[in-house]
Amino acid sequence: MTHAIEARIQELERYNPCLTAPADLDEFWEKTLADYSNKPLNGTRELVHTPMSGMNVYRTTYEGADDTPLHAWYLTPKSSNEEQFPCVVHYHGYGGSKGMPEHFAHYILMGFAVLSIDIRGQSGDTGTRLEQPYGAVKGWLTPGILDRETAYYRAITLDAIRAAEWASAQPESDPNRIFLIGGSQGGGLALIVSALSSVPKAAVAHIPNMCHMDFGILNSNSSLSEAAEFVSKHPEHLNSVLHTLSYFDNLNLAPRIKIPIMISCGLKDPCCMPETVYAAYNRIASEKEMKVYPFDGHWVSDGQNRLAMEFLARHAAFSTS
Amino acid sequence: MTHAIEARIQELERYNPCLTAPADLDEFWEKTLADYSNKPLNGTRELVHTPMSGMNVYRTTYEGADDTPLHAWYLTPKSSNEEQFPCVVHYHGYGGSKGMPEHFAHYILMGFAVLSIDIRGQSGDTGTRLEQPYGAVKGWLTPGILDRETAYYRAITLDAIRAAEWASAQPESDPNRIFLIGGSQGGGLALIVSALSSVPKAAVAHIPNMCHMDFGILNSNSSLSEAAEFVSKHPEHLNSVLHTLSYFDNLNLAPRIKIPIMISCGLKDPCCMPETVYAAYNRIASEKEMKVYPFDGHWVSDGQNRLAMEFLARHAAFSTS
Amino acid sequence: MTHAIEARIQELERYNPCLTAPADLDEFWEKTLADYSNKPLNGTRELVHTPMSGMNVYRTTYEGADDTPLHAWYLTPKSSNEEQFPCVVHYHGYGGSKGMPEHFAHYILMGFAVLSIDIRGQSGDTGTRLEQPYGAVKGWLTPGILDRETAYYRAITLDAIRAAEWASAQPESDPNRIFLIGGSQGGGLALIVSALSSVPKAAVAHIPNMCHMDFGILNSNSSLSEAAEFVSKHPEHLNSVLHTLSYFDNLNLAPRIKIPIMISCGLKDPCCMPETVYAAYNRIASEKEMKVYPFDGHWVSDGQNRLAMEFLARHAAFSTS
Amino acid sequence: MTHAIEARIQELERYNPCLTAPADLDEFWEKTLADYSNKPLNGTRELVHTPMSGMNVYRTTYEGADDTPLHAWYLTPKSSNEEQFPCVVHYHGYGGSKGMPEHFAHYILMGFAVLSIDIRGQSGDTGTRLEQPYGAVKGWLTPGILDRETAYYRAITLDAIRAAEWASAQPESDPNRIFLIGGSQGGGLALIVSALSSVPKAAVAHIPNMCHMDFGILNSNSSLSEAAEFVSKHPEHLNSVLHTLSYFDNLNLAPRIKIPIMISCGLKDPCCMPETVYAAYNRIASEKEMKVYPFDGHWVSDGQNRLAMEFLARHAAFSTS
Amino acid sequence: MTHAIEARIQELERYNPCLTAPADLDEFWEKTLADYSNKPLNGTRELVHTPMSGMNVYRTTYEGADDTPLHAWYLTPKSSNEEQFPCVVHYHGYGGSKGMPEHFAHYILMGFAVLSIDIRGQSGDTGTRLEQPYGAVKGWLTPGILDRETAYYRAITLDAIRAAEWASAQPESDPNRIFLIGGSQGGGLALIVSALSSVPKAAVAHIPNMCHMDFGILNSNSSLSEAAEFVSKHPEHLNSVLHTLSYFDNLNLAPRIKIPIMISCGLKDPCCMPETVYAAYNRIASEKEMKVYPFDGHWVSDGQNRLAMEFLARHAAFSTS
Amino acid sequence: MTHAIEARIQELERYNPCLTAPADLDEFWEKTLADYSNKPLNGTRELVHTPMSGMNVYRTTYEGADDTPLHAWYLTPKSSNEEQFPCVVHYHGYGGSKGMPEHFAHYILMGFAVLSIDIRGQSGDTGTRLEQPYGAVKGWLTPGILDRETAYYRAITLDAIRAAEWASAQPESDPNRIFLIGGSQGGGLALIVSALSSVPKAAVAHIPNMCHMDFGILNSNSSLSEAAEFVSKHPEHLNSVLHTLSYFDNLNLAPRIKIPIMISCGLKDPCCMPETVYAAYNRIASEKEMKVYPFDGHWVSDGQNRLAMEFLARHAAFSTS
Repeated sequence: MTHAIEARIQELERYNPCLTAPADLDEFWEKTLADYSNKPLNGTRELVHTPMSGMNVYRTTYEGADDTPLHAWYLTPKSSNEEQFPCVVHYHGYGGSKGMPEHFAHYILMGFAVLSIDIRGQSGDTGTRLEQPYGAVKGWLTPGILDRETAYYRAITLDAIRAAEWASAQPESDPNRIFLIGGSQGGGLALIVSALSSVPKAAVAHIPNMCHMDFGILNSNSSLSEAAEFVSKHPEHLNSVLHTLSYFDNLNLAPRIKIPIMISCGLKDPCCMPETVYAAYNRIASEKEMKVYPFDGHWVSDGQNRLAMEFLARHAAFSTS
Repeated sequence: MTHAIEARIQELERYNPCLTAPADLDEFWEKTLADYSNKPLNGTRELVHTPMSGMNVYRTTYEGADDTPLHAWYLTPKSSNEEQFPCVVHYHGYGGSKGMPEHFAHYILMGFAVLSIDIRGQSGDTGTRLEQPYGAVKGWLTPGILDRETAYYRAITLDAIRAAEWASAQPESDPNRIFLIGGSQGGGLALIVSALSSVPKAAVAHIPNMCHMDFGILNSNSSLSEAAEFVSKHPEHLNSVLHTLSYFDNLNLAPRIKIPIMISCGLKDPCCMPETVYAAYNRIASEKEMKVYPFDGHWVSDGQNRLAMEFLARHAAFSTS
Repeated sequence: MTHAIEARIQELERYNPCLTAPADLDEFWEKTLADYSNKPLNGTRELVHTPMSGMNVYRTTYEGADDTPLHAWYLTPKSSNEEQFPCVVHYHGYGGSKGMPEHFAHYILMGFAVLSIDIRGQSGDTGTRLEQPYGAVKGWLTPGILDRETAYYRAITLDAIRAAEWASAQPESDPNRIFLIGGSQGGGLALIVSALSSVPKAAVAHIPNMCHMDFGILNSNSSLSEAAEFVSKHPEHLNSVLHTLSYFDNLNLAPRIKIPIMISCGLKDPCCMPETVYAAYNRIASEKEMKVYPFDGHWVSDGQNRLAMEFLARHAAFSTS
Repeated sequence: MTHAIEARIQELERYNPCLTAPADLDEFWEKTLADYSNKPLNGTRELVHTPMSGMNVYRTTYEGADDTPLHAWYLTPKSSNEEQFPCVVHYHGYGGSKGMPEHFAHYILMGFAVLSIDIRGQSGDTGTRLEQPYGAVKGWLTPGILDRETAYYRAITLDAIRAAEWASAQPESDPNRIFLIGGSQGGGLALIVSALSSVPKAAVAHIPNMCHMDFGILNSNSSLSEAAEFVSKHPEHLNSVLHTLSYFDNLNLAPRIKIPIMISCGLKDPCCMPETVYAAYNRIASEKEMKVYPFDGHWVSDGQNRLAMEFLARHAAFSTS
Repeated sequence: MTHAIEARIQELERYNPCLTAPADLDEFWEKTLADYSNKPLNGTRELVHTPMSGMNVYRTTYEGADDTPLHAWYLTPKSSNEEQFPCVVHYHGYGGSKGMPEHFAHYILMGFAVLSIDIRGQSGDTGTRLEQPYGAVKGWLTPGILDRETAYYRAITLDAIRAAEWASAQPESDPNRIFLIGGSQGGGLALIVSALSSVPKAAVAHIPNMCHMDFGILNSNSSLSEAAEFVSKHPEHLNSVLHTLSYFDNLNLAPRIKIPIMISCGLKDPCCMPETVYAAYNRIASEKEMKVYPFDGHWVSDGQNRLAMEFLARHAAFSTS
Repeated sequence: MTHAIEARIQELERYNPCLTAPADLDEFWEKTLADYSNKPLNGTRELVHTPMSGMNVYRTTYEGADDTPLHAWYLTPKSSNEEQFPCVVHYHGYGGSKGMPEHFAHYILMGFAVLSIDIRGQSGDTGTRLEQPYGAVKGWLTPGILDRETAYYRAITLDAIRAAEWASAQPESDPNRIFLIGGSQGGGLALIVSALSSVPKAAVAHIPNMCHMDFGILNSNSSLSEAAEFVSKHPEHLNSVLHTLSYFDNLNLAPRIKIPIMISCGLKDPCCMPETVYAAYNRIASEKEMKVYPFDGHWVSDGQNRLAMEFLARHAAFSTS
């Protein structure tokens, strides 16, 4: 049965495109991470009112790639004892925001703390102090894209790594049970943080971006289409753009991942296309599972969210009998 | 300032179209409701596993307009004492479903019980035993539309009324604190149940449909476009269709509402158009508030959801200081 | 010349995908057909007025898969003698209806009788008494799709088979010259009835659906996209859905066809895609002809309709010199 | 009931825009028609094979505004006696063709003869010998539009008038029972021929164009959008274009109509918009009926086609009991 | 003739919506302009190679609202004598760039010098050092929009004013013959600079934005839809956003204009809608002319560009006999 | 790096589809060109006013394939001495026109004369005296397409060849330095004239059409979709249409090209698809260069225009140091 669908999936499972890793990929990240190893997070937190009496809501800020105050919600179950909670760090999709505390109520009811961060400059209340050194097209991807040091991806990757550190540093968090979750941009960040940081212990990357970006820039309608439009206006910068992207491509970084990973993929997703998701997934060497949805486009279904909840419960060692 | 936007809102606040109420509107509803007053709900409930340890999840069924088993989630905070919870009854949008228990976790954290029902035949796991007596176009609206007695709107209105009764009948629910909420189709149902049932004590109708349907069938892209397409194929049935709809039009039923109502409206909503929402809203005589979003289309924003949470908390007399 | 087009057609002529036939396919149909072999048609017919003085128009009903009265037009040339006419049975496309008697006037002028049926529940005046046992998405395809016994395709296949029997039973019809015709859904039904019934003597299937449905559900925008959407909402039911469809897939049933078949196909048809049409066509073992239109989408051209008229005239043994 | 729809229709019934008639409108047409009064039709006819044994099919040509051979089907019931038939002259929609004889089989079964003509240069097999004196945009409307004498509308109006004459001249036609029918462009031609020729005795204009063209060029997506695009490229020619159109605008010519007219209109038609159809309709002084479809766009429904058949049967004095 | 079009234009000529000017509008601009009156331009210029031997091309930078180096082309006719040229300052449309020197070759051939600037951060090679203090949606409009002092419009208005000063300061420019031109965003900037600076002597604003923005944010698909989307995500900021915009609205600033202005407008422009363009135009008290294109959308036609050339030639006092 | 993009380009560089050349291709062109070798151009020229004092503008006409007066601009630098200029002949894109003299100002500033012609019947002010012998679909491609002698492509190819001759015949032109340029249709014409005429000395074909048309008619959305639509309406003419096109297909004619050629191509161009452009390019035997834009659709970028200027300057032997 289901031959056409099975055939497509098998083809993806065998998909193994050329890598795009630059020669100094490891060196770049070693140096970059070392530069930040002693930089303080300069975090703040403030308990705020919520209509949800079962949850503590803290409005927090911390610093990531620079001194921009990055806003986030830190949420915990209301508990009288001094318990430490496993903590889920949430990265949102492109153009989104840290959302509302109520979006994470289910994790609180499961017994998790949650840190949901704004990705800088997008539609939360977090700005950015990154200087834009050159022209850009609409969107967040192309400002600074001509150089890996000024690239937006560099900033948000560091912001995301340090979010996990900030989550881990909260007294209510159990630093041995920090988990990552996100979809699309958030999935891409969950993967790259899994590759570059030792803080997280498992991660869920729904329909992740930042994978096999040479393919995505040519074929997808994702935020990479901004990079494509930029090159269309500045054709002389094609190689610089591809070079910059290669440092942040999970296709190249996936082998560094050491923790259990759940990834999802929609065969009809024109944004984070199955070729790109599988290309990175196929190179992960740690414990991993792929959830593939033959008829889904660029969205995360209720069922997939539930599977993520169960995956995280399992890794948090909650009893779920 | 903001003159163009203010002017548009003021125009809507004065909008007062002709009613479409048939002469026997009251008689129809008195008879209909009387017919069901002694019909048993034949409910079932079963506790099911959930990864959310802070919530009790019951898979329940009950009967509405006929003997179709209607599926619903009944959710409560996990509480050791014999407390009764105020209860929110949730009606979903057109084509949707009762969703997943985790969608209602925020209400649990507020201290509410929740009953979220499937609207029959739509994308939950609830079928329908309504016979289809005539042809129809795609969708749920037109099967049976030639007669008020066979109309889908009649069935789902009764299903929705009886959902409130079923919620009220649960031992964990406080029958004096039953509230209704829903968006689009769910908002329309929240309004019509508010008009026809004494069970609910307050209701939130986000971007409600089933309002001023003579206008909507002519101008909107809502599910009424199915009725329009049906008439396009069967022009001889125009009057029958309009006659059927008039019995379920909140424009006609709004004056019956006795409870506090919050309604929302997007000025750019091509589906539940502002003229239709205001037409019904303007005729409500009880305590009411309109939340208008100048640039929103057919969606319910996070901010509006938060306002609904606070509205319900207020009417449940939770302390929210 | 025409190499790109020829190359595409040759590729299709060689297309030979895996079958999806379940092990008990034959058994299922033997039992199903046996169950109906003695079920009476319970037909009715009534002569009605028409402005076309050269045609007799009968409004008829008959029973198919259950006791739903299925509406149809039975049309004959007005003839003083006791002649028996060859009869064309017409199945309409998805969402359509039996149409108007005038749509078949050309067949009357050719000397055919015509039976044009409503497919149940669609936009004619025929309802349906099928119970919907589970949720569904918009459209007719997914109600009951979890089981071959409750599937809509089962009902309409039986309705279509019995339409041919009803046509054959009319005194004006020559039972040795019953022919089938239809496009899209109607083409799919013409093929499946050709495979399962001995009544028809030739058939025309324009751009037929119900062919190679594992491919179509993944790639087309046909009514199978409803099944795809259903699975998208209920991913756990993927295999059930594919299993159900496999019993009604002309890819699996085509080798049973014993009569002459004309099929048409548009290379630009995104609905009944050429891969699906050719996959079934290539497995037909009887006399067959394919009419392929390189630039046509999902429509039946005037020229193809004329070819169908000539094909039917030939098989009715009309002199057409 | 139905107030929003009724209100819209009442508004249209009162719609009475300024006329755009040039001072010499009558003079232009008197001279033009006089110039053609003695021009021979130079017709040809040839009986051709058809699979429809109940119909005689003649491939004919005649001459209209110039010496271009205009192709048409002349169709009659096959009848042994020397009967004369009432005759329907059919004008097709924009970009269409005379179609196939089978499209008119229902009229043959009613007892009509039919003349279905190609509009020159469109997608039938009729070319055009009109010289194009200036640039144009895609489509047939703008070649020659700078002058009423070279305008395409002039040519096709004359072609259409002379089609009625050619129909009337056939020995099988009853010259006292010539009728016109058409939709969109064909409806516009039916109206203008009704206004300018004494040959037709009744006419059906479905969703007609060529009405209130100053409104249509500004607001519709009809073929007038070609004139709009032409002016957009040649803004200096705005007045010339409007001047040319005014000679062919049924808004100006409607009062000349002396015969019974049936017109149809879809309130959702963005092409032949209701304002334009009603503007012309409201100025007709002869017997008239409007069939309005509240939810129909730019199409002619089966029901409206049937009404047209009955209208023509009535005026042909067929007994239709 | 042409009544529907004339009627529409007359309606626009009478259009006179409420102003949105804040009480301290004048004060704000006086203070702002005073703050910059002594700020140096810190310009640079460098002659670069061009294949156009008749043109001198200088790559220049200058400073506007802050110390960001703003890139621009300064172009002059190649001339052996010490002549001073009248100079056209060009502002590009939203998302565009200063373009290529060859885009301005026609002005060189007319005898003008040209300064074509990048609008900061858009797709030229000019970045921006504006800090983004809060979240934003895609595009340039909403970063900083909560306060008139951080608003992007403030920065680019000052950049544009100072561009005129920089143009005037070049030795090849005749400071008494500085002219402005631009379309859409560029037209909006041409108007606001005309209102706020004494440097320009005439201006052409094709289809200008930044006019009647309370209307545009509600109704248009212009860049104001970014502000609408921002408010949709942050409804609490509606008034702040409208307040900020009001300081930069040419509706409020138009009466300050003292120089001859040519404006163009397309009646079918959904971006810079005719209501918004006329609202500002109608309030200009100086010499003015409106060029209205009944069928044009959001583009500038060749004919309108030619009219602009002739307008500028006239005001530069070129002999154009 | 850039593997996905490089891989795509390498695939195109190897693309080598079957030819579609008819047996008598050479014979057809020899005879056709011979027929015109003595036909006079019957040109006219008139100096007209321009606001660009540095340019002489001549409104000219000449004759091409028949006696239609074809309009063109002939433009030269204003120069006191008797210099002869190299001359660029410009062919516009489908549906366009010769444009305005200002569009070519950059070539004047480079020292070129320019002849920019109208393609007959399109949106310039040039009509056509070609008779249309058969029906057609909207657009210019299908009138006359059933025969190579009446085909539009034949006429415009001859018009374009003779434009180069007319350019060469002007006293201001250096007949040894005639160059061709155009995009899309204009690019197709530049190639076919390069293949058939000895007048041009180099040519630039941006995103050219008229290449590998058997592929384009099946797959592209170019003007060939008109031919596809024509065949869709007249399926019996498929072979005639393909036969006609084959005489004008640069895939077949490319090997005749003897001069340096620059071609551009966008990998995302759905109109002049990369397969079609490369198919012709790969068969050119003379000096050639391909400029490929990975993310560009059907447009010519500023950067590509600049490359074309430099290519032409090089071949005109201008010093560009």
